[in-house]
This record gives sequence, structure tokens and C-alpha cells, in this order.
Amino acid sequence: MIIDRLIEKITALRAPIVVGLDPRISQIPSHIKEEIYAAKGKSTEAAAEIILTFNKAIIDSICDIVPAIKPQIAMYEQFGVAGVDCYIKTIDYAKSKGLIVIGDIKRGDIASTAEAYSNAHLGLTDVDGEKSAVFQSDFITVNPYMGYDSIEPYLSDCGAYDKGLFILVKTSNPSSSQIQDLKAADGRPVYTHVGELVSQWGRGLIGQSGFSSVGAVVGATHPSQGKELRDMLPHTFFLVPGYGAQGGKAADLTGMLNKDGLGIIVNNSRGITGAYQSEKYKGRFSEKEFAQAARAAALDMKADLEAHI
Amino acid sequence: MIIDRLIEKITALRAPIVVGLDPRISQIPSHIKEEIYAAKGKSTEAAAEIILTFNKAIIDSICDIVPAIKPQIAMYEQFGVAGVDCYIKTIDYAKSKGLIVIGDIKRGDIASTAEAYSNAHLGLTDVDGEKSAVFQSDFITVNPYMGYDSIEPYLSDCGAYDKGLFILVKTSNPSSSQIQDLKAADGRPVYTHVGELVSQWGRGLIGQSGFSSVGAVVGATHPSQGKELRDMLPHTFFLVPGYGAQGGKAADLTGMLNKDGLGIIVNNSRGITGAYQSEKYKGRFSEKEFAQAARAAALDMKADLEAHI
Repeated sequence: MIIDRLIEKITALRAPIVVGLDPRISQIPSHIKEEIYAAKGKSTEAAAEIILTFNKAIIDSICDIVPAIKPQIAMYEQFGVAGVDCYIKTIDYAKSKGLIVIGDIKRGDIASTAEAYSNAHLGLTDVDGEKSAVFQSDFITVNPYMGYDSIEPYLSDCGAYDKGLFILVKTSNPSSSQIQDLKAADGRPVYTHVGELVSQWGRGLIGQSGFSSVGAVVGATHPSQGKELRDMLPHTFFLVPGYGAQGGKAADLTGMLNKDGLGIIVNNSRGITGAYQSEKYKGRFSEKEFAQAARAAALDMKADLEAHI
Repeated sequence: MIIDRLIEKITALRAPIVVGLDPRISQIPSHIKEEIYAAKGKSTEAAAEIILTFNKAIIDSICDIVPAIKPQIAMYEQFGVAGVDCYIKTIDYAKSKGLIVIGDIKRGDIASTAEAYSNAHLGLTDVDGEKSAVFQSDFITVNPYMGYDSIEPYLSDCGAYDKGLFILVKTSNPSSSQIQDLKAADGRPVYTHVGELVSQWGRGLIGQSGFSSVGAVVGATHPSQGKELRDMLPHTFFLVPGYGAQGGKAADLTGMLNKDGLGIIVNNSRGITGAYQSEKYKGRFSEKEFAQAARAAALDMKADLEAHI
């Protein structure tokens, strides 16, 4: 099962790390941009080509030390047709390099609409009997607000195509408290109820690792809530955003682990892909060495996590 | 403000109706499909062209009797690049015919990610200073689970570009109860708390009509909850799914209206676009007359709503 393969890669590489590919044009070195702008102008097509060039260099540089990447579809969708093409090509390139791909799409809808998203991102799209693979991600993130109707179509495809989900439970941003932390009548916050639903929904997809291919998104910025959720949800793997730039620290993650030190994959986006621009790395790496800087940042993150996990 | 323009069109046409464009290939007449399959095979490109042809005929047929359309992006995204191109062209065509467009995208994410979605669907995408319009919708639907951080970027663009939102509050599907109806410690369900947040978030965007450009999605299938939300949220306009196929009836909508009979726009997707396939219309219209059948169904819906509103 896909969750077992993810855990095997994490264990083999000693790196519970996913590199977020959320490229912003302002973050991409000028030597990549200038050449492409010269040919195509400052168009959405140029932006898409710039991002793909950047992504491929990052992927080449980190594919042997981390198990997975997580492209954030919004950063591609904003460039329309060209951006979506770049999203597809980024996924395909990462998979050709042996990486597991978590499509950060946070879709949430019901019935035939959820089926359409599921076909597109996990399964196959059907054109009157002819099936095509559109977005070839291994996992996607989804939003639970509409309940089981908005999850069930994905579960079928997870079973049929060996894919997985990470469902938003307790997100890393400050205002996640507004709805997720609302106290329910039983005294427990909404996110614990959502966590229980995620665990129920994932029961049919538990792998040999003991974890389900239906995981949860739990922010690194809420260590005590992370521990509470780990204790409640022993079979639920956590995708953990918020490390680094948002303030989450390696020491904050220990409560989210099980007794074998497993249970999480920690996202880092600009802390890795934009390392060459940061105070910490810019003395050591030039702008042209952005991919080497990303590798150094990924290795430093690995060491930071190893010291605590 | 966009909400005022929507209400003016609703009033002028006496039709609080939005036609959902959620095309499924199985719903499209064979004469459209055969010609395009012959040229392009059963490809995603063919599917996109078939859907655009179908959508244009529906738009031509209803653009003088309803104020708005609501394309559901999942039904386009499933065809990848070609599908996204078709989504853009559907919006552009509808706007050229004077329709208001509600992009049913249900996105929900934070910070620079939400900004990217907002740029793409409401504002302008920036490529190093060059700005392009990508998806030209007037309103979009969004998911509130991540709280204000996931709404704020859209509010800025609503102000800057005169656009609007419909935020999920109480959706029409049966399992919406799992999270939305969870009782909070104060005895009130989660959806009422979300409704209050939506009302707060929309305070800066109230138009001359007294309604805010930040509206709520409230399903027709929950009449008493709809009335409760109307009483709580006098300035919040409701986008109402669930009429027709999902079981919502015109009589169920009266509690969602204010004393002037305003406050809602009711979605109907396949009840209008697929009318030619239904028992009610298939004796009167041939498959080739699908667009006339859609018009008849829209006029019948208008009469049904007028009898109760």
C-alpha cells in the first residue's frame, strides 16, 4: 500500500521530509528568468516554463535524499492552462526520479464533483470509455468540511489505484483556531471530532506498517494538539506543515510520533527551495547554486529532525 | 458592488436562478460528440471541445432569462490542460453574453497560496510586474475550514476588483451534518458559528442593496436551518444548491428570504442542462433540441419559484 511505500522510503533515507514545491517567481534565480522572458515575454507561459526549469533542478538535487515532494497546485493554477501543464510535468518528472508525490490540492466537494476530482488526481478520467491519467499524484490533500460525501469517492480510488489522502484536521495557520478549535458540546474541540472521522474513514486502507493510506494534516505549530491527536489516532499518518518559516521546531514534533519514531512526514517549502536567498546559506551558495543550497538545507533539516526523532 | 448588480439582474428578470454548468459527457447529445470524436478521438481535448460546444448552446439559450451561471471547475479540471482551457472559455463566453459568473471552485488555503488562488480567480496574476487576467469569474465559492487566514486574501481582491465570495456554511449534502451540525459548547451547531464569521468577514463589502458581496452557501435541503441562518445574517446573500435533483423544493426556500423577498440565488444544474433527457421534457424536445429544453426548464423553475417567493 502507498502508505507502506512512503514509510519504507522515509526509513531507508532516515528523512521524514517532503519538499514543498510552491514556487514564487520572486524566488527563482534571475539567470533562469532572463533567458525565458527574452524568448516569451513576461507571460503566463514564460512563468510556467521558468517554474518547471526551477522545479526540475530542485528535484534533481534532492531526489536521492528525501522521499517525496508536495507541489501546491494554487501556485500553478494561477498561471492558467500553462500553469496546469507545468503542474502535470512537475509531477511526472518527480515520479521519473522515484519520488512520491503529494498533490497539495485541498479539494472538497461532493458526489459527481468529488468523483471528477478523484478521477483527475488519483484515478483515471473517463472520456466515453477511453481512460486517461491526468494528474499522477500518489496522495492528495482534501478538505473535510462537507463530511463523508466529500471523501467517499476518493476512498474508492485509493483502493482501486493504491493512492492515499491527507485530510485537513488541525492546520498550522493561526486562525485555524476559529473553526477547528471550537469547543463541541462534549468539551472536545472540532478538530478531535474531525480526527476521529479521518480515522474511521481510513479503516479499510491500513497497510502492513499499521498506518492507513488515509492520513491527516496536523500543523507543527500546535505541538500539544499534535500529541493529543497522535494518542487518539494510532493508525493515522500525519502530514505536518509549519516547520521552519511558520515557526514549528523539530522538538515540537516528538509528541506526534509513535513508539517506533514513525508517524509523520514534515513539509518544508521555501526553507529548502529558497535556501539560497536566506541569511543562513547565501554566503555559501551563489544564486546559480540554488539547487545545491536546497540540497544543503534538506540535509540540515534531516540532521535537525534526527537530533529529536 | 457586484452583489448589487447580481440583485438588480435577479429583480429585473424575476429569476433568482443560477444555471450550474457541471457537464458530464454522458449528458451531452450524441450529435455533438460524434463529430468531435471523429476528428480528435476520445481524448481529453475532444471532451473539452464537446463541453464547450454544449455550454455555448446552453448559454445562448438561457442568457436572456437568468442572471448567472455557475461552472463547477472539477468537471473541467478532470480533463487537465484542455479542461482548464474550456473552463476559461466558458466563463469568457458567458460574460460576453452579459451573464454573471460564479466560479464553483471551493478553494481553501492560506497566505501566499490563497493569494495565488485569489489572483487567478478574482484578480490578476502577476508575472514579474506584468499582470494577466486568468479566470474571469465575478464570484467564487470558498471553504472556511482554515479560518480567516484562508479568506483575507480574497477579501482584498473583492474590494480591489469588485468581486464576491460565497463561503460554505451549511451545504446541501446529507453528510454535511458530520462537521457542520456538530453542537458547540454553547449549544449551537458549528454552521451557525461559521455563518457569524462569514457575516463578520463581509462587513466591509456591504452594497446599496444592504447585502454583502461576501455571501454564504446554504443548501435548499435544510429549510429550517436556512431560516435560522437568514434570521441571524440579515446582510448575507445565500447561494442555494440542492433544489430539484437533491430534493429541495421552492416552498422550502421561503424562510431564507428577507421581507422584500430577496436574499437567495438558487442553483439548478442538470435539472436545466440535462432537461432533454428527463421524463418531463423528453416528449416535447428531441436530443437536438437540448438547448430549447434547457430554456423551458429554466422558465418552469422561474414559475415554480415565483409561486412561492
